[in-house]
Amino acid sequence: MAHITLPDGLPGIRGPMAFRPETARPLNELVDVLLWGPHTLTRGERELIAAAVSAANDCEYCQTIHGAIAAHHLGGDEALVDYVKSDHEDAPISDKLRALITIARKTALGGLHVTADDVARARTHGATDLEIHDTVLIAAVFCLCNRYVDGLATWTPRNPEFYRQRAAMIAERGYVAATIPAPAAATP
Amino acid sequence: MAHITLPDGLPGIRGPMAFRPETARPLNELVDVLLWGPHTLTRGERELIAAAVSAANDCEYCQTIHGAIAAHHLGGDEALVDYVKSDHEDAPISDKLRALITIARKTALGGLHVTADDVARARTHGATDLEIHDTVLIAAVFCLCNRYVDGLATWTPRNPEFYRQRAAMIAERGYVAATIPAPAAATP
Repeated sequence: MAHITLPDGLPGIRGPMAFRPETARPLNELVDVLLWGPHTLTRGERELIAAAVSAANDCEYCQTIHGAIAAHHLGGDEALVDYVKSDHEDAPISDKLRALITIARKTALGGLHVTADDVARARTHGATDLEIHDTVLIAAVFCLCNRYVDGLATWTPRNPEFYRQRAAMIAERGYVAATIPAPAAATP
Repeated sequence: MAHITLPDGLPGIRGPMAFRPETARPLNELVDVLLWGPHTLTRGERELIAAAVSAANDCEYCQTIHGAIAAHHLGGDEALVDYVKSDHEDAPISDKLRALITIARKTALGGLHVTADDVARARTHGATDLEIHDTVLIAAVFCLCNRYVDGLATWTPRNPEFYRQRAAMIAERGYVAATIPAPAAATP
């Protein structure tokens, strides 16, 4: 049972977001820019960073939904997502993404864990300043989301199919559109 | 030296925010609702939660600026802020704020650390669902900000007077207004 009274039937972060729409709106906008907007990293790569950080933080809801969104963007490759979550250094991903996920996981431990060598390694494999910035910020944002979800003891569905269906909607529409209902048509 | 090339002369979170205004805007809006907008917790109480979490996360820039903003709202009582940062269970604050800061510091450790007993204690002292929600979210947001600031190795000024001056501006204008320049006057 959640620590506060949340709207019925909404799992994970969606319960507190419905409870407090004033904070949900900017948070969804932030996630939309980082994970769904135009970028030199693909949506699949950015969702892998989010899923890997959420796995490191042991947040079941976030690692499952963002793992499912990553898999959706990666042609349904759930095995790759699981590999990255458990051992990104060994998983078959690009050297650049591998170095970025190392930065992300160190950011999750605490920002001071990220070293100049970690950043130099990412740069060697072609990472830009924007990609390094956004990797740190994606990791930091998921340190927020993971704590928001678990700190309020929200509901975590167990059925993987639930996550696949929600993932498809978010992957196609983005975070803001998938969360905020479209405004009603203007009355004539 | 920061891990990426940031605009000159902007300390802490202000460097990466100027580097990436697309993410700075929603992040400032989120912090504005939580720390500066209308609330049943005072601005001083909310800034104390932010400063205590930032101290727990060992982020020098965030604990100093939010400590200075808290002190500004609390009539300049910097000694109280230092007391809360180092030992909020013993500091002379209300029982409700003490219980909320315990929830915040546990959220910083990881959301799963927050127990039903922690929440019940806050409720005993009059905390509402909204106050408990916002305490968890303030803590989560500062787990973001602390990692964003330190994960990019941003500049941390050492002069306390710098923080006092900036704190006065934020305390009076809020986060969005203090960060985003006012639009130029429309040309006739």
